[in-house]
Amino acid sequence: MISFDSDYLEGCLPEILNRITETNLEQTPGYGEDRYCLEAAEKIRTAIKMPTAAIHFLVGGTQTNSTVISAILKPWQGVICATSGHINVHETGAIEHGGHKVIALPCTQGKISASQIEECILSHREDPSHEHCVQPGMVYLSFPTEIGTIYTLSELKAISDVCRRLRVPLFIDGARLGYGLCSEGCDINLPTLASLVDIFYIGGTKQGALFGEAVVFTDPAFCPEFRYNIKQNGGMLAKGRLLGLQFSTLFGDNLYYKASEHAVELALNIRDAFSKKGFSFLSESGSNLQFPILSDSQAEDLRRDFSFENWERTDSGHIAVRFCTSWATREKDVQSLISAIEAL
Amino acid sequence: MISFDSDYLEGCLPEILNRITETNLEQTPGYGEDRYCLEAAEKIRTAIKMPTAAIHFLVGGTQTNSTVISAILKPWQGVICATSGHINVHETGAIEHGGHKVIALPCTQGKISASQIEECILSHREDPSHEHCVQPGMVYLSFPTEIGTIYTLSELKAISDVCRRLRVPLFIDGARLGYGLCSEGCDINLPTLASLVDIFYIGGTKQGALFGEAVVFTDPAFCPEFRYNIKQNGGMLAKGRLLGLQFSTLFGDNLYYKASEHAVELALNIRDAFSKKGFSFLSESGSNLQFPILSDSQAEDLRRDFSFENWERTDSGHIAVRFCTSWATREKDVQSLISAIEAL
Amino acid sequence: MISFDSDYLEGCLPEILNRITETNLEQTPGYGEDRYCLEAAEKIRTAIKMPTAAIHFLVGGTQTNSTVISAILKPWQGVICATSGHINVHETGAIEHGGHKVIALPCTQGKISASQIEECILSHREDPSHEHCVQPGMVYLSFPTEIGTIYTLSELKAISDVCRRLRVPLFIDGARLGYGLCSEGCDINLPTLASLVDIFYIGGTKQGALFGEAVVFTDPAFCPEFRYNIKQNGGMLAKGRLLGLQFSTLFGDNLYYKASEHAVELALNIRDAFSKKGFSFLSESGSNLQFPILSDSQAEDLRRDFSFENWERTDSGHIAVRFCTSWATREKDVQSLISAIEAL
Amino acid sequence: MISFDSDYLEGCLPEILNRITETNLEQTPGYGEDRYCLEAAEKIRTAIKMPTAAIHFLVGGTQTNSTVISAILKPWQGVICATSGHINVHETGAIEHGGHKVIALPCTQGKISASQIEECILSHREDPSHEHCVQPGMVYLSFPTEIGTIYTLSELKAISDVCRRLRVPLFIDGARLGYGLCSEGCDINLPTLASLVDIFYIGGTKQGALFGEAVVFTDPAFCPEFRYNIKQNGGMLAKGRLLGLQFSTLFGDNLYYKASEHAVELALNIRDAFSKKGFSFLSESGSNLQFPILSDSQAEDLRRDFSFENWERTDSGHIAVRFCTSWATREKDVQSLISAIEAL
Repeated sequence: MISFDSDYLEGCLPEILNRITETNLEQTPGYGEDRYCLEAAEKIRTAIKMPTAAIHFLVGGTQTNSTVISAILKPWQGVICATSGHINVHETGAIEHGGHKVIALPCTQGKISASQIEECILSHREDPSHEHCVQPGMVYLSFPTEIGTIYTLSELKAISDVCRRLRVPLFIDGARLGYGLCSEGCDINLPTLASLVDIFYIGGTKQGALFGEAVVFTDPAFCPEFRYNIKQNGGMLAKGRLLGLQFSTLFGDNLYYKASEHAVELALNIRDAFSKKGFSFLSESGSNLQFPILSDSQAEDLRRDFSFENWERTDSGHIAVRFCTSWATREKDVQSLISAIEAL
Repeated sequence: MISFDSDYLEGCLPEILNRITETNLEQTPGYGEDRYCLEAAEKIRTAIKMPTAAIHFLVGGTQTNSTVISAILKPWQGVICATSGHINVHETGAIEHGGHKVIALPCTQGKISASQIEECILSHREDPSHEHCVQPGMVYLSFPTEIGTIYTLSELKAISDVCRRLRVPLFIDGARLGYGLCSEGCDINLPTLASLVDIFYIGGTKQGALFGEAVVFTDPAFCPEFRYNIKQNGGMLAKGRLLGLQFSTLFGDNLYYKASEHAVELALNIRDAFSKKGFSFLSESGSNLQFPILSDSQAEDLRRDFSFENWERTDSGHIAVRFCTSWATREKDVQSLISAIEAL
Repeated sequence: MISFDSDYLEGCLPEILNRITETNLEQTPGYGEDRYCLEAAEKIRTAIKMPTAAIHFLVGGTQTNSTVISAILKPWQGVICATSGHINVHETGAIEHGGHKVIALPCTQGKISASQIEECILSHREDPSHEHCVQPGMVYLSFPTEIGTIYTLSELKAISDVCRRLRVPLFIDGARLGYGLCSEGCDINLPTLASLVDIFYIGGTKQGALFGEAVVFTDPAFCPEFRYNIKQNGGMLAKGRLLGLQFSTLFGDNLYYKASEHAVELALNIRDAFSKKGFSFLSESGSNLQFPILSDSQAEDLRRDFSFENWERTDSGHIAVRFCTSWATREKDVQSLISAIEAL
Repeated sequence: MISFDSDYLEGCLPEILNRITETNLEQTPGYGEDRYCLEAAEKIRTAIKMPTAAIHFLVGGTQTNSTVISAILKPWQGVICATSGHINVHETGAIEHGGHKVIALPCTQGKISASQIEECILSHREDPSHEHCVQPGMVYLSFPTEIGTIYTLSELKAISDVCRRLRVPLFIDGARLGYGLCSEGCDINLPTLASLVDIFYIGGTKQGALFGEAVVFTDPAFCPEFRYNIKQNGGMLAKGRLLGLQFSTLFGDNLYYKASEHAVELALNIRDAFSKKGFSFLSESGSNLQFPILSDSQAEDLRRDFSFENWERTDSGHIAVRFCTSWATREKDVQSLISAIEAL
């Protein structure tokens, strides 16, 4: 059985494991204040072309989202998000647990638009009884989205413009940032993305690390006491060096991009195989996530040898499923899958 | 410079790293539902002699304490704790962040007593205006305590009796549980400890794992939806297998105890060296944490070659410092330290 | 200028003020433990025909909703609610501030259905990754709804059946309960409503009291420590007798119903005047809230002498507005309004 | 039976009830935006000699403390308070429920000192691992304290100086502010107090109103969105005019002071009667709260005709009790009590 269930099925890139093994018996201070964290932060600053950005390392995605959002919002503020956004549906209410409403806007292809965001913020401000409503205090986007789509440069610029004009911080969940940046059709690079947002994170867990997410505050003065918040939210890893070692490895020798490109290339091969057979898709994804719509019997057929996620029923006899590749996906496994698709 | 600052200075026991490396490219489901987590849970159940206990794996100590405590308490309840307890002083208010007061009781040698606990609970219940006060809803102990001491069997039994009689759950923070159980003078073993409490956790981070804490609910019906709580609090590791692999290794071949014994033995050697020179100690610790009281100049002398934590000033010219050994401490480094102590 | 803006424009029913004045210099214990609170609770138990129900008095609606909901839910649970529900839109995120997601379901005429609720709960339970999602833990309905409609007996019975079968508590926000029960077409009475739910509250603030909401737990064992929760949430009035005096007055001599009937009768007169002139309405309301749809110029005309709330724009030239009557509305003011409507 | 249990036994000053009755059928907007709230705020600004201060009205003390504190603190901050402070012991953990630790400092006569506060803040800042500890973010004082004592001008100035120098806001709980300002030996007046703090509140509930507390932000820019916080915390009274009417009455014609002076005068008479008989006291109180220490049999004697609170056992045969006078205490009742004291 070959699994295409997720991008966190395997351990990590071998280069990372080597680095952890080599340094295993070194003594380092804890809690992210070791030399490897400093080194990794410096490499990230270089990669995003922001020499003064503040970089913090956390362990997982839900933790990162809830820690960042609760650090930024005032108690009576909420975070604007697509209805399909991860924080709205798949984090067991971690944002609300931290005291904040997720203000969910309807989305198209997993995305919300600058004009939706502007309307949401302005209609609140213009409402004479606005004190009775949650104040929009932040915008959350996923890049790529949960269904593999990406914001174009012009879309993201427009959102960034609205956020700056209305003085509402913009935060990007980059759990799969590498796969997004390497997507087919992506016209944004990392420094450009960084220049348009206030906070974002660079996912490690789904991108070839054992675990870890690197939070970037583009303005270091934006949240100078964020380390308190990390600790309070249980996200400060005692052996912080593990995070430093992993991100230092990912951002050395272009590994982050190479691994992402590998995953995307294989995902597009899967997409093309479905396409050629005339299947349609839930979303126009150029990333490592592909959502073909199968008949129930076709899905059953494929499940004999492959495992993948049911995503959403599209009608009574059809279902959109998710195939997910990663840095670890093997070409021969994709070949087997393609043969099976061709045989449907 | 040799560091005795903490027990999380190095990476992990080589056996663990080997296991992670060997299994690196296997595909496993995420979030703690893989075979290694099942295997580790089974080994822990065997070690504690509780075939039905519920076992969960989290990443770090603060996260574990706040997740467990917030899962158990009702909103208006607080947790009884020694003033020196970790949750009271070193977790940036994570418990309060979760909505609960830490009801801090004065302690002796880092410990609180059954009678203090009973008095705290009963005086609340007997107060006619008790609804205006936080209701004691749980007891938190550290084993060993923050200053290396341990509860004796009779002390723990007495506390357990009070808790059961008054129907208040008893929770033990075992971040250093192995070092505690292997302490000089410890008359409790793991199954006995398990039999006396409702919840405890077996520390990994400070005990030779890269990270990880194993939470044990001795009654599986006590908190059947704890996985929701883990996820909501950002503690559910995507690649949960890493936790399973580590605890399966620690609880195979007696490794957890061997590593703990190694640390304690070296700590006692350090203690004896200070003792022989006539130094007194902040606490009567038989564990891997030793707190000799040095004059400022003696501390300065030792700091030329060794690093260790300042703990607390005992008078204007003296300071209690902390020497911490671990599974990774090398005998030759301890020998160097002992020589330096002898030369003071 | 005559205002139809809300049902809390004036002070209170004169009978209440008399009672407060008569007893002003009596000494009573605080915090709801005085004889007037006991007396009021007893009258409510009689009115709902539940001799053992637990009754608590709080000050305002947002406070009551957030206190009740946070007392009932576990941290990882959310509350099912219509998208238009008061807790979802007009309480500044008080529910989320207490840590819980509002699970908003689309509504028709302000109402959600038994089948929607069942589907929401069952789809969660059947989802293999349900631990990553907020667990539906409670159902919240408003009676009447925010747009003046009411659940019929058969609708409420069906919802109650689902809730009991699936063991999810049912809570009714009765901020305007009297106006709802006295609505045209209402086929539910107070004892029947009480028999179908787990918790509800009887609004005072909008029903002729100075302030105050009476929470009813139909099963006294459901939340025996609710007084802690009231206190912790700042809802325990020091001079609790004021709440007792008010509810004792409202539930003596049928005053609660008389005042409600007065308001509804006048609201229906307003409705009929709009109807006769051919206006349509946002909702089919038989309660004290009426939502005619006016052209912008008609609204402007009426605003010369009357004040009322803009509710929601229905198209570029029309707006649904809200006319609200109360126990205090004067017939002659309604007559003036009707004349103005006829003259439109 | 005459009760000296508290200062919220009776309803309210007759002048207030008259004002509520006279205006009962007027229509006013809700939520504190009516003319009476504006009028009351203006009178308070005049009384404190701060023409630009921001004034908000809330319903009760616990609500006010938790709403103010949670509006000011960042998530990782705590509030410094005397161990005997109301927020530390008698608010069912409302502050912690809002996410914040109460940092309790030992107190003398119910008071903490400038040097204690400074030491607490500086030792946190100088601790290299301060991110692991709760950051002191605010100072809370009660004036008068829970045991009736007051800060002198020089004590309060010293605390204010520390707070300003270290940029930590100073908040005064004035639930009994009038009784404090009219205390024997008080050398602070209201404008001076206002000039030394950042936030304080003027109690109504215990000072002759039916309920209500007036929060003053001396700098209106300090918390410009506080109304959101009030609403979210359930403290925004729908019929806000009731708060305006009450405070407008209290701050007209010197009523607030006259009523306070009355209570204090009678309390001092009680104190003097105990003093003459040689009783000692728990605290040196010149306010409306007196804490004589009685033998158990003396307490029993007095309880035949009078009711008063047990405060704290001082030894096995003696208990400190609390006698509390108010605006409503009658001279003849005090005379009866004095006779009973003399007969002990």
